[in-house]
Amino acid sequence: MYKESLIQVHERIKPHIHRTPVLTSRLINSLASANVYFKCENFQRMGAFKMRGATNAIMQLSEDHKSKGVVTHSSGNFAQALSLAAQSLGVRAYIVMPKTAPQVKKNAVKDYGGLIIECEPTLEARELAAEQVVQTKGATFIHPSNDLNVILGQATAGKELLEDYPHLDYLFTPVGGGGLIAGTAIASKHFGKSCKVIGGEPMEADDAYRSLKSGQIESNNSTNTIADGLKTQLGSINFPIIQQGVEQIICVEETEIIHAMKLIWERMKIICEPSSAVALAALLKKKSNYKDQNIGIIISGGNVDLSELPF
Amino acid sequence: MYKESLIQVHERIKPHIHRTPVLTSRLINSLASANVYFKCENFQRMGAFKMRGATNAIMQLSEDHKSKGVVTHSSGNFAQALSLAAQSLGVRAYIVMPKTAPQVKKNAVKDYGGLIIECEPTLEARELAAEQVVQTKGATFIHPSNDLNVILGQATAGKELLEDYPHLDYLFTPVGGGGLIAGTAIASKHFGKSCKVIGGEPMEADDAYRSLKSGQIESNNSTNTIADGLKTQLGSINFPIIQQGVEQIICVEETEIIHAMKLIWERMKIICEPSSAVALAALLKKKSNYKDQNIGIIISGGNVDLSELPF
Repeated sequence: MYKESLIQVHERIKPHIHRTPVLTSRLINSLASANVYFKCENFQRMGAFKMRGATNAIMQLSEDHKSKGVVTHSSGNFAQALSLAAQSLGVRAYIVMPKTAPQVKKNAVKDYGGLIIECEPTLEARELAAEQVVQTKGATFIHPSNDLNVILGQATAGKELLEDYPHLDYLFTPVGGGGLIAGTAIASKHFGKSCKVIGGEPMEADDAYRSLKSGQIESNNSTNTIADGLKTQLGSINFPIIQQGVEQIICVEETEIIHAMKLIWERMKIICEPSSAVALAALLKKKSNYKDQNIGIIISGGNVDLSELPF
Repeated sequence: MYKESLIQVHERIKPHIHRTPVLTSRLINSLASANVYFKCENFQRMGAFKMRGATNAIMQLSEDHKSKGVVTHSSGNFAQALSLAAQSLGVRAYIVMPKTAPQVKKNAVKDYGGLIIECEPTLEARELAAEQVVQTKGATFIHPSNDLNVILGQATAGKELLEDYPHLDYLFTPVGGGGLIAGTAIASKHFGKSCKVIGGEPMEADDAYRSLKSGQIESNNSTNTIADGLKTQLGSINFPIIQQGVEQIICVEETEIIHAMKLIWERMKIICEPSSAVALAALLKKKSNYKDQNIGIIISGGNVDLSELPF
């Protein structure tokens, strides 16, 4: 049902995003016993796929709304994405960030012209702080993942990958708030040839895995994972899309995430976030199920604090 | 004088190497006040430009010589390059390595089928051990940098970059043994449009800088640098080419190398070696001399021990 919308979204945001390259690695193909195509959103503007959704969401606003700015709460990449997209489009961005967010991400938000409002690292505190900005400034709240315009923006990464490699059997993405995997499910349905979508999720933040099992949105019991982009909560807009379009979510342990991240760094010579490595970790964990298949993996981002590496 | 040779070398090795991508970064352009084009040899097979020279040198041997194998001494990347090139071409490779070489590089040599012979970390010990292999096995010694076939192989990186960006004003490379910069000087002379070649060298291993000043090959007084690929010594074959074709060598401090490496990792999301960062460090140090120029930088390699990072 979103095919025409997705085509329009892609045309709309194209001038503002990079068409990121797709890389392969013989060694990783050999380890996975499959043909793996990595869509490198770590090379996207500001270093993550979230630039796509943020750009689309702002571009959909009326001129009146644009003039009052946008606000979001984000632990990292969406904060940078909304800041840069807003700056590029001449819009003010208020960013509610947890005090505990990595300094490298706070600095990047400031570099992109975002106005940071710090809060306690809880969902409640974030939502309250964002609501205050909406009330006092008239800014439009844009959710990092539970927003259809954001989801359709994120869907363009999978759409591009399927344009380049139409015969993919599977698309793997990490699962955090659910925006990327919901968008990827939409892209796969309309631009893939019976391409199935699989999520990778840390065991330490497995809300999506349990939500798919129970049929209702579950909360994270813990978020003690190195994949800091995946601590966020599934939402009411993306969950039904995920239920309909995602075949399975595979949960991985922290050591499996670090191992996959190290493989990508050492063998592909590219920098990805721990969150990005979760998708490869999921594939490697269950590789016997995907032997000789053509598999797309979305490397979601590359914004890492180099002073906090797990190796 | 090497134009035709270089064209032949490139055609010869093309099936065995990657044509590596050229990346740019708006932020680095802004920091350097120039247009910088990074030739990403970190994405080359085995992770460094040395694959080019090793492949060419082995392909030039007679079948009789090939059957007896090749031998080299190398602190790292040339060891891997000769191993992989030899494996691809069905030739045995003996690799004399200092005991102190990073484990990640020793493992890579083994993975590529190279036979490691360990020695003390001195030039004398390396040369003696290699000579013994020549005597006992009949293997052909291939020097990592002071060999015309190797130099012409390395030259193909600059040739490709100039084919992609013919109007470069400058080409920057790191300077270690001198093979890359000598090759780049040859490529620049024949395929550039008055493109000048500049070397970046660590102050802690400044043999090439001092050799150009004095007009004769000088030795390193120290090699206490993080740029472990650049500790090696200029040679009699590449030095005259460097004297003729290199405009200047800029020496940089260790902190400047680490700063440039961090910029490449954080902003370009690619993994490069400390040695590779020396070329960017040199440009940034003297950027007022290169304002608004079009500058190619050869990112020489990406083989890094992730457990030994300087950040």
